[in-house]
Amino acid sequence: MRTVWLNGTFVPETEAKVSVFDRGLNFGQSVYEVTPVLDGHFCNWPHHQARLERSMALARIVDDTDWQPVLTELIARNGLVEGRVYLQVTAGEAPDRAFPLPDPAIPATRIAFTQADRLLDNPLAETGLRIVLRPDLRWQLRSAKTTQLLYAVMMKAETREAGVDDAWLVENGVVTEATSSNAYIIDAHGVLVSHPVDSGVLPGVTRIGVASIARELGLAVEERPFTPDELFAAREAFSSGAGTLVLPVVEVDGRPIGSGAPGPITAELRRRYVALLKAQ
Amino acid sequence: MRTVWLNGTFVPETEAKVSVFDRGLNFGQSVYEVTPVLDGHFCNWPHHQARLERSMALARIVDDTDWQPVLTELIARNGLVEGRVYLQVTAGEAPDRAFPLPDPAIPATRIAFTQADRLLDNPLAETGLRIVLRPDLRWQLRSAKTTQLLYAVMMKAETREAGVDDAWLVENGVVTEATSSNAYIIDAHGVLVSHPVDSGVLPGVTRIGVASIARELGLAVEERPFTPDELFAAREAFSSGAGTLVLPVVEVDGRPIGSGAPGPITAELRRRYVALLKAQ
Repeated sequence: MRTVWLNGTFVPETEAKVSVFDRGLNFGQSVYEVTPVLDGHFCNWPHHQARLERSMALARIVDDTDWQPVLTELIARNGLVEGRVYLQVTAGEAPDRAFPLPDPAIPATRIAFTQADRLLDNPLAETGLRIVLRPDLRWQLRSAKTTQLLYAVMMKAETREAGVDDAWLVENGVVTEATSSNAYIIDAHGVLVSHPVDSGVLPGVTRIGVASIARELGLAVEERPFTPDELFAAREAFSSGAGTLVLPVVEVDGRPIGSGAPGPITAELRRRYVALLKAQ
Repeated sequence: MRTVWLNGTFVPETEAKVSVFDRGLNFGQSVYEVTPVLDGHFCNWPHHQARLERSMALARIVDDTDWQPVLTELIARNGLVEGRVYLQVTAGEAPDRAFPLPDPAIPATRIAFTQADRLLDNPLAETGLRIVLRPDLRWQLRSAKTTQLLYAVMMKAETREAGVDDAWLVENGVVTEATSSNAYIIDAHGVLVSHPVDSGVLPGVTRIGVASIARELGLAVEERPFTPDELFAAREAFSSGAGTLVLPVVEVDGRPIGSGAPGPITAELRRRYVALLKAQ
């Protein structure tokens, strides 16, 4: 049984509970981070911490937990070698449900747990993802990592029913991102293209590493939206996220991307990104 | 101390807790209803039940709780005479956090609690609401009553800071709804106008009663979007919701609506709506 960290205490996972008056539960007033764990170490923490602070500011959550020692001990107590560590901060347990922020202020609810998983040996890195395009109907403030995730859940359910691996979302004629990761193409000219980081997409931590490696490889990197037509004409396509690292896309709406097999640039980006994580 | 109903059991409110792996908490995969209670009876239940079923279908939540006896007993146990009864259904406590729906399926988490409040003797019915206009940045599937409510929370906080009572939301040049209620005008021609019930707004239960009473009063009722300019030129404006019933709007972005005092049609709609609830 896992040990979960809840509001300063390590507890068995079956005892980790929050009030039915928690504002995360009633209003989705809640933010989170997912950090990859390799060789028992969690990676990229400064980027996750910076984004968490931005997300909390938008969601009007105030908390100054020092997460680094918490996550370190949580990983040790659970003996986690490879996988993810998840943390969530909600606006706290209110005395009663009401839209206005409680006055006086209440303490945030703070949760962290580990998830064992094989990040490196992922069969989808070999086979590639088959995806579909779906309209992006999410809220407009997507640069914050909040738990407004129902649309992502709905899309994951639809893609499973469609027999594919994921959906990429389209808004105003351009691809924004995947259901829970950033989306990229290597376009017909060999340029790496991805939606700019604005309120339309999450500023992915993995994305920072991917863009930096792409430049090392001598690729031109353009942060601009791309259309479904550019996606269909792309040499390669891939997604990136903290739990999946870099995964090639081989098929979109039943049509092959490039050769229909994982692309060589994507494979090299994944290889180098894994090396970057291991070197931390 | 209140008694809360949780998954079939009546418990003290301090013991009503859900797992940190609840999909309502992690993903906002959760729907709710708020029903007015007058003279110890909860009102309009068939409409709330029908909407709850539609919300659950969209959010992919399966549950067949027979709510009527649950809410009846909960109100009795808490001795509630006037106020609201709130219920929430989440996609349940998963064995671990993951976007895909758990397979095999897990039972929904079901919560209900009462809130004592004075619905009838509301000073805002006399003074009217002062509101501001804000962009509607919420997700596009607003006809379902889900807990994707962070934007509403943010707007409530902004309006408090601005020293006003509420915000009405504007998208593509038209008013959609208030932060947590439906929005209406009596336009310059004496017509009752409100955004049509589509994916842009919640199909309010109070709204059904309001529209029916308006027709009884001989008002023309048009379900169509209205612009901020039409709002500024309106004779009257008001909002409706299960907790607020009908409340006049007297000022928008610092400009008076009509005479700047609560309008006579709004007052009559509120009076008749209260009578309708009391007659149930």
